[in-house]
Amino acid sequence: MPTDASFDLGLISPVSAGRDQAVSDAAILAALVGAEAALIDALVAEGVAPEGVAGERLRSVALDAAALARDAVAGGNPVIPLIAQLRAGADEEVRPWIHRGATSQDILDTALMIVARDAVGRIRADLARVSAALEAFADDNRDLVAAGRTLTQHAVPTTIGLRAANWRRGVDRALARLDGLELPAQLGGAAGTMAAMAEVVRASAPTQRSQDGGDEGRRAAAGPDTAQIDCVVLERVQGIRRGYAAAAGLRHLDAPWHTQRWPVTELGDALAQAIDALGKIATDVATASRTEIGELAEPTGGGSSAMPQKRNPARSVLIRSAALRAPQLAATLHLASALAADERPDGAWHAEWPALRELLRLALGAGSHAADLAEGLRVDRDAVARNLTATGGLIVSERLGAVLGRERAAEIVARVTGGAGLASLVDPELLDPSQYLGLAGLFTDQKEHRDRS
Amino acid sequence: MPTDASFDLGLISPVSAGRDQAVSDAAILAALVGAEAALIDALVAEGVAPEGVAGERLRSVALDAAALARDAVAGGNPVIPLIAQLRAGADEEVRPWIHRGATSQDILDTALMIVARDAVGRIRADLARVSAALEAFADDNRDLVAAGRTLTQHAVPTTIGLRAANWRRGVDRALARLDGLELPAQLGGAAGTMAAMAEVVRASAPTQRSQDGGDEGRRAAAGPDTAQIDCVVLERVQGIRRGYAAAAGLRHLDAPWHTQRWPVTELGDALAQAIDALGKIATDVATASRTEIGELAEPTGGGSSAMPQKRNPARSVLIRSAALRAPQLAATLHLASALAADERPDGAWHAEWPALRELLRLALGAGSHAADLAEGLRVDRDAVARNLTATGGLIVSERLGAVLGRERAAEIVARVTGGAGLASLVDPELLDPSQYLGLAGLFTDQKEHRDRS
Amino acid sequence: MPTDASFDLGLISPVSAGRDQAVSDAAILAALVGAEAALIDALVAEGVAPEGVAGERLRSVALDAAALARDAVAGGNPVIPLIAQLRAGADEEVRPWIHRGATSQDILDTALMIVARDAVGRIRADLARVSAALEAFADDNRDLVAAGRTLTQHAVPTTIGLRAANWRRGVDRALARLDGLELPAQLGGAAGTMAAMAEVVRASAPTQRSQDGGDEGRRAAAGPDTAQIDCVVLERVQGIRRGYAAAAGLRHLDAPWHTQRWPVTELGDALAQAIDALGKIATDVATASRTEIGELAEPTGGGSSAMPQKRNPARSVLIRSAALRAPQLAATLHLASALAADERPDGAWHAEWPALRELLRLALGAGSHAADLAEGLRVDRDAVARNLTATGGLIVSERLGAVLGRERAAEIVARVTGGAGLASLVDPELLDPSQYLGLAGLFTDQKEHRDRS
Amino acid sequence: MPTDASFDLGLISPVSAGRDQAVSDAAILAALVGAEAALIDALVAEGVAPEGVAGERLRSVALDAAALARDAVAGGNPVIPLIAQLRAGADEEVRPWIHRGATSQDILDTALMIVARDAVGRIRADLARVSAALEAFADDNRDLVAAGRTLTQHAVPTTIGLRAANWRRGVDRALARLDGLELPAQLGGAAGTMAAMAEVVRASAPTQRSQDGGDEGRRAAAGPDTAQIDCVVLERVQGIRRGYAAAAGLRHLDAPWHTQRWPVTELGDALAQAIDALGKIATDVATASRTEIGELAEPTGGGSSAMPQKRNPARSVLIRSAALRAPQLAATLHLASALAADERPDGAWHAEWPALRELLRLALGAGSHAADLAEGLRVDRDAVARNLTATGGLIVSERLGAVLGRERAAEIVARVTGGAGLASLVDPELLDPSQYLGLAGLFTDQKEHRDRS
Repeated sequence: MPTDASFDLGLISPVSAGRDQAVSDAAILAALVGAEAALIDALVAEGVAPEGVAGERLRSVALDAAALARDAVAGGNPVIPLIAQLRAGADEEVRPWIHRGATSQDILDTALMIVARDAVGRIRADLARVSAALEAFADDNRDLVAAGRTLTQHAVPTTIGLRAANWRRGVDRALARLDGLELPAQLGGAAGTMAAMAEVVRASAPTQRSQDGGDEGRRAAAGPDTAQIDCVVLERVQGIRRGYAAAAGLRHLDAPWHTQRWPVTELGDALAQAIDALGKIATDVATASRTEIGELAEPTGGGSSAMPQKRNPARSVLIRSAALRAPQLAATLHLASALAADERPDGAWHAEWPALRELLRLALGAGSHAADLAEGLRVDRDAVARNLTATGGLIVSERLGAVLGRERAAEIVARVTGGAGLASLVDPELLDPSQYLGLAGLFTDQKEHRDRS
Repeated sequence: MPTDASFDLGLISPVSAGRDQAVSDAAILAALVGAEAALIDALVAEGVAPEGVAGERLRSVALDAAALARDAVAGGNPVIPLIAQLRAGADEEVRPWIHRGATSQDILDTALMIVARDAVGRIRADLARVSAALEAFADDNRDLVAAGRTLTQHAVPTTIGLRAANWRRGVDRALARLDGLELPAQLGGAAGTMAAMAEVVRASAPTQRSQDGGDEGRRAAAGPDTAQIDCVVLERVQGIRRGYAAAAGLRHLDAPWHTQRWPVTELGDALAQAIDALGKIATDVATASRTEIGELAEPTGGGSSAMPQKRNPARSVLIRSAALRAPQLAATLHLASALAADERPDGAWHAEWPALRELLRLALGAGSHAADLAEGLRVDRDAVARNLTATGGLIVSERLGAVLGRERAAEIVARVTGGAGLASLVDPELLDPSQYLGLAGLFTDQKEHRDRS
Repeated sequence: MPTDASFDLGLISPVSAGRDQAVSDAAILAALVGAEAALIDALVAEGVAPEGVAGERLRSVALDAAALARDAVAGGNPVIPLIAQLRAGADEEVRPWIHRGATSQDILDTALMIVARDAVGRIRADLARVSAALEAFADDNRDLVAAGRTLTQHAVPTTIGLRAANWRRGVDRALARLDGLELPAQLGGAAGTMAAMAEVVRASAPTQRSQDGGDEGRRAAAGPDTAQIDCVVLERVQGIRRGYAAAAGLRHLDAPWHTQRWPVTELGDALAQAIDALGKIATDVATASRTEIGELAEPTGGGSSAMPQKRNPARSVLIRSAALRAPQLAATLHLASALAADERPDGAWHAEWPALRELLRLALGAGSHAADLAEGLRVDRDAVARNLTATGGLIVSERLGAVLGRERAAEIVARVTGGAGLASLVDPELLDPSQYLGLAGLFTDQKEHRDRS
Repeated sequence: MPTDASFDLGLISPVSAGRDQAVSDAAILAALVGAEAALIDALVAEGVAPEGVAGERLRSVALDAAALARDAVAGGNPVIPLIAQLRAGADEEVRPWIHRGATSQDILDTALMIVARDAVGRIRADLARVSAALEAFADDNRDLVAAGRTLTQHAVPTTIGLRAANWRRGVDRALARLDGLELPAQLGGAAGTMAAMAEVVRASAPTQRSQDGGDEGRRAAAGPDTAQIDCVVLERVQGIRRGYAAAAGLRHLDAPWHTQRWPVTELGDALAQAIDALGKIATDVATASRTEIGELAEPTGGGSSAMPQKRNPARSVLIRSAALRAPQLAATLHLASALAADERPDGAWHAEWPALRELLRLALGAGSHAADLAEGLRVDRDAVARNLTATGGLIVSERLGAVLGRERAAEIVARVTGGAGLASLVDPELLDPSQYLGLAGLFTDQKEHRDRS
C-alpha cells in the first residue's frame, strides 16, 4: 500500500505510468538541487565564491521530500524549505553560498526548465521513432489502395501509405517545434533586478573590500571610481547569470523572464502540438481497428480474457486520453501567462507548475506509446480491399462525374442504386480505384517537409 | 528521496499538499477494493453468493499498488490487475465471487464516486466553516464603511460587512450545489446490460439448477416457466444493483450510466463552482492585502525572512492558483462526456479520471485554506478609513449628482479638481459616506439564501 | 454583401445559423431595452415614478445598434450609449426615469438573463422533442439486438433500443438541470448597495419632501423619525428590486449578485451538460453511420452531388462541432466567476458576455438539429444484424466462459480462431445474442428517471 | 435595429468592436471568393483553363451572404452554396472553371488563411506600435525608482522603466512568433489526393485530347506513354497547387494539410501568446491605476459622468477580457487538431472556424487597444515616489540583511516595527532605494532580444 506521503503512483494515469519518471517529484527535487548547484558553480566561476566550493556537493545532501512538500505550504513553494534542508545538510564551506543572491522563483523556474529539457529530450526521441516507423510503414503501404473517408463516409480512394505519410508530416512538424524551443534559466532575484546578487558581488570584490572595510553602507559613495566599479559589478553579475545558465544546461536570456512567461507557454504549445499529432494518429488507428473496419491493428491488442474477440486498440485509447486533456492544460499556461501580475504574480505562477508537469507527463506517455504503436502497426490488406468495395464501386463516383459528365454519371448512379451492377454500366477500368489516386504516391514519397526540420 | 514508484508527493502542489489524502492513490485503491467488496456483499444479500462470504475480507488482502499502476497499462485500467491480485490474495471461499458479473468500468466508476463522496464531505465541512466564519466577520464589520471599487476605481461607499456577506452568498450557493449532488454506483457489466450478472444469477438459482443440470446452453428453453423464471432473474439482478449501491454507500440509479457521464460532470461543475466562490474571496483578499491598500490581512502572513515588510497573502495566492486551474479541468470532464462513444469510449473515459481527481484535490486544498483564511481574517480599520478618503470625498460624487442635480455637482467637482476642499463647498453631512450606503446593512443581515440551502 | 456593421451573419456557424435569433445582437438589444423598461415599471409600481410612465414606451424608441456597438467601446459596455439614445428618443415624461438608480451592469446582466430565459425555453422545447423521439425510437427498437462496442470492439450484445434509451436518460437529466435554473434579475447600483436608488426613493417620498424642502443634504438628520423613515425607504427600495425582477420575468434574489456569478456559471454548466448529452448522441450516430457500419442514418443525409454514395451525418457533425467547443466556453465563465474582483471586476465581467452568448447559441443550434435528427432517425435492421455476426459468434464469448467455464471456453475460442465454426462446437442456442441481453429490455422500459425530472 | 440576418454587430464585444472588420463575415466571404479566384488563376497559369478566364471576374459576382449562411447548414459549410451562387452569377467563360478539381475544404481552409494573413498583418502592426511605444516609455522612465511587488507586497525596488522594458520583451517575443508563422494554402481535393484535379489536367492535355477523343475511360491505358504522360500530369497538378498558393498569397506546402492542422494551431498559439503579452501589460496597468496606487493612467480614462473621480482603465479592462478568453479558444483548436479524424473529420473541422475567427478578433481588438494604451500611457511620478515610501523604508530590508547581516537586520526591523524610524538606525544611504536596483538599468537598455526578432 502506498504511504501517506505518496499522493500519486500512476494508478489512474495508465497513459504515462512507468514512462514519466523524468517529471516525477523526485526528478523535480533533483532539478531544484541542480539549480542551486548551478548557482554555486556560477558564483565560483565568477570568482565570488571560493574555488573549492562545488555545487556538486549539494547533491549528496540527504533530503526529506515529504517534509519539503509539507513545508512548502506556508511560503507557497518548495524552495524555501529546501534551502533550509540544504543548509542543514551541507558542509560549512558550501553553506554560506547556498541560494546567495537568488529568489525562490529563480530556483523553481530553472528546475522546471531542467526537468522540461530532459523530458523533451525523451519526447523527441520517441517522436523520432514514430516518424521513422511511419516513414517505413508509408513506404511499405505506398500503393495499398484504401477507402478515403470524409465525414465518416467513403469519399474517394486514397492509400494506406499516404495516410501514414500525413501522420508523419504532423509528427515531423511537432518535432521541429520541439527543436525550436528555447528553455532558459531564470535568475533575477526578488523582483528581477539582481539587486541582491549585485550586493553579493560587491561584497566579494577583493580590491574594494579593503576600501570598504566594515564600513556599512557607505561603499557606494566611496570615491571617484564608483561608477567604474559598478560597471565591473554589473558585468560580473551578468557573468553569474551566464554561468548559471551554462551550469544548468539551459539557455541564457538577456533579462529575467519572471513575469514574461513565454518560455512556459511556448513549451506548453509545442507539447500540445506533439500530443495533437499523436492524437490524430490514435484517432485514425482506433477507427481503423473497429470490428467492422479492421484495417489496422495495434502491435499487441489490449486483450480481454472474457471476450477474446476483442482486439482493443489500447495504446490508441491511452494516447487519445492524453489528447483530450492536453489542450486544457496548455490553456492554463496561457492564462497564467496573461495574469502574471507585478514582479511575481499572486497565484498565476503557482497555477503553472502542476499544469506544465502534467503536460510533460502526457507527452512522455503518449510519445512512448505512440512509438511502440507505430513500430508495430499491422495492416490487414484483405480488410482494406474488402472495405474499398463497400460502396459497390461508387467510391469512384466523383471520377465518373468528371469523365462522363455529371448528368450521365447521375443517371448511372441512379441505376446502381436501383440494383444494377456498376461494372455492367461503365468501362471497368474507369472503376479501378487504383487509377484514381491523383498525387497520393507523390505525397507519400515527398519528404521535404521533414528534411527541413 | 521519493522512491521510483511515487510520482507525486505534492512537492509542486502547495495548495493541496497535506490536505488531499482523501483522493490519493491510496484512497482510490481502497475505494476500488471497497467497490469489489460491495459487489460481493450484494451477491450475498441477494442469495447468490453464500452467507459467509463477506466483502470485508478483501480489505485484508495485501496489495502492491506500484505493481497495479505498472500493470494497468496493458489493459488500460487498474482494475484488471487488481482482480488478479485480489484473487491471488483472497481465501478460497471468497475468490470465486470476486468481480463476478462486473466489468472493470463498474469498479472504477464506483470507486471514483466513493472517493468523491468522501472528498465532497470534507469539502462541504470546510465550506461550512468558511460560511460560518464569513457570517461572523460580516456581522462584526456590518457598519464598517469602506470604498466600493469598480473597474479598480473607487466608485461609491460600501461596507466590509457587505463584501463578506456577498462572499458568503457565493459559498452557500456552492454548498447547496454540493448538497444536491447525486453520486451513483455503477454496475452494468461489459456493455451496460447486466448480461453476465443475469448468467451468474441464473446459475445460482437453486430450483433451476436441478432442472438444468449440466445441460449447457439449453436452460433458457427449458420449459413453460422460462419467462417467469427470467422475471425472477431480472428482479434479482436489479436487487444486486441496489444492494451494491447500498453497500458502497452510493445512490442507486435505474440504469447504468457508463456512457451517460452526468454524474461526473455535475460533480465537476459543483466543484468548480465551489472553487470559483473561494477564488473570488481570495482575489478580493489578495487585492485588499496590497501594501498600498492594506485593508485585510490573512491570519498568518506568508512571511519572508529576507523581506520582513512582506505580509504575503499566501493562502489567497494558493486558492487563486486552484481557481485558475479548475475551470479547464471541469471542461475536460464535459468534453469526455460528450465524446463518451459506444458502450465504452475509446479514450474519453480514461481522460476523466485524472481530471476529476485533480479537481477534487484542488477543492480539498482550496476549501481547507479558505476555512483557515476566513476564520482568521483580520481587518485594519484605520486603513479602511484612510482609503475611504483617498478621493477627497468624491467617493460620494454619485450622491451629489442625485441630490444637487448634475450640473451643480459637476461644477462642484470641477472646483474640487482645481484644488478646493469639497467640504467647504457642500454640506458636510452630504459627504458622509456612511450616509450613502443604501441597503448595505440589509443585504448584510439577510440570510434567506443561506437558510434555503 | 453584408454591411460593415454586421460582423457575423452565421456564415461559419452552420450549427446555429438560422436557429440562433433568440440570442442575436437584436435580441440582446431588445432585452437591454426590456431591462430599462422593467426598471421604469418597478419605479411606477412602487409609486416613485408617476402612474402614466410605462416602460413599454421605451420599446418604440428608434435605436442605432451599430452606433451602440461603436460607442460601447469607450465605457466598455453598450448600456452607457444606450441610455443616451433612449433619453434622446424618449418623450419627456419618461426621460427623467430612464436608468434611475441603476448602474449599467444591472441592465446588462438582466438583459443577458432575459435573453437566456428565452433561449433556454427554446432549448428545453427542443430537448423535449429529442427525448420524446428517442423514447419512441427506443420502444420501436427495444428488441433489435445489436453489437455492443467497447473501446471500438464488439464486446457483448445490446439493443438499439437500450442505446437510445440511454441517450434519452442523458437528455432528460440535462432537461432537469435546465428546469432547475434560477435566472435572476440584477439590480444593485454602482457597488451593489442600492444607494442611488435609496436616494431616488427618498427624494420621491411625499411626506418627507415637505419636511426636507430644498434643504440639500440635511434630510437624513431631520428629526426623530429618521430611522423609521429610512426603514420605509429601504422597504420601498427592496420593493423596486422585487418589482423589477417581476417586470423582467426573472427571479428575485435577496441581494445583488454583481460579483457572485453563479447565475452565469450554473447556466453555462447546464448548457454544457445539454450539449454533452446531444454530443454523445451525435458521436454514436456518426459512428453508426460509417460506411462500413451503416446501422443508423440521419433523416436527410447531407448529400454530395459529386459523391452520391455519401450519406453524410451532417447534423451529427454539426452537433459534434458544438460539443467540442462548449466545454471551453463554460470554462471561461467559471474563470470569470473566480476572478470577479471588487464590486465590479476589471475584465472578468466583460469576458463573460460573448462566452455565455456563444454557449446559448451552440445549445440552440445543437438542440434544434438534434430534435430533427432524433425525430427522423432511421435504422437499417439488416446492417445491424449483419454486424452482429461480424465476430463469427464470438460476441457471446463472455457467456461461453460463464456457462462452460473459462478453460473450456478458451479451448473453443482457440479452435474458432483456427477456423472452426463456432456453431459446430457449442449448442447453437448458447450462441444466440438475443439470449444474452441481461436487463436490456428492462433498462429500455424504465422511465423513472425521466418522470423524476 | 439590426436585421434578422445580422447575428453580431459587436454589441457585446467592446474589445473588438470597430477593430475587427478584417475577420468579419464580409471579409471571410471575400476570402472565399478570393480562394476560388486563386484556383482559376492557377488553372490558367498552368494552361488548363484558357488565358482569358481571370479569377478576378468572380469578385464582381453579386452574392447574398445571408442566403449563404442559411444554405450552409445542409452541407455543413458555406462553400457549397457559394459555388452555386458563383456559378449562377458568373459569365459563361468562367463558369465551367469554378471550383474545378477542388473540394469545399480547400476553399474554406484557404479563405481562413487569407483572412488570418490580413488580420495578422494588422495585429503585427499594432504590436509593433506597442513595442515602440514601450521602448520609448521605458527609456523615459529608466531611472524612475518604484516599488517592486511580489505576491501583492512591496518586495524590493525596481524601476518603471524596467517594468515597461519587460512588457516590451513579451510583445517582441510574440511578434517573433507571428513573424515565424507559415500560413499555407490548402488544395487537396476530396480526400487530399488531388485525384479530381489530375482528371481535370488529363482532360485538358491538348496532345492527349486528340488520342482520347470522347473515348471515355480508356485514356489511362492508351498506350506505351501512359507512365510518362502521368508524370507530366502530376507535375502540372503540383504546378496548380503552387500557382494556387501564389495567387492566394499564401505559403505552398508539399502536401495538403487537411487533417494535419498545425497551421491552425500554430496560428492559434501565436495569437494566444500575443494576447498573453498584452494581457500582462493590461493586468499591471489596471493594478497601477487603482485609486490607492495611482502610478499609471491610461491616455483617456473611461470616465463616468456620475462618478467623476473614476479614471477607469477601460482599455486595460477590455484587453484583460480578451486575455481571459483567448486560452480556451486556442485549446479548442488543439482539440480539433487532435480529433481531425479520417480524411475530413466529423465535427472537429467545423469546430475550428468560429474559434479561430474569434481568436483573431480578440487579437485585433486587444492589439489595437494596447497600441493606443502604450502610446498614451501616463505615469504619476509623485504617486510612484509616495508608494515607494509606504513601508517606511523597509523596501530595502533585503539589502539590510545582506549588508548588515541577518541578525543585525532582524533586530533593526524589530525596532522599526516597534515604531522607531528606520533612518535613525541605519546609514541613510543604505536606505536609498535608487542604490539597490541591481541591473535594472542594464535590463532596461538591453534590446538584443528584440533585434533578434
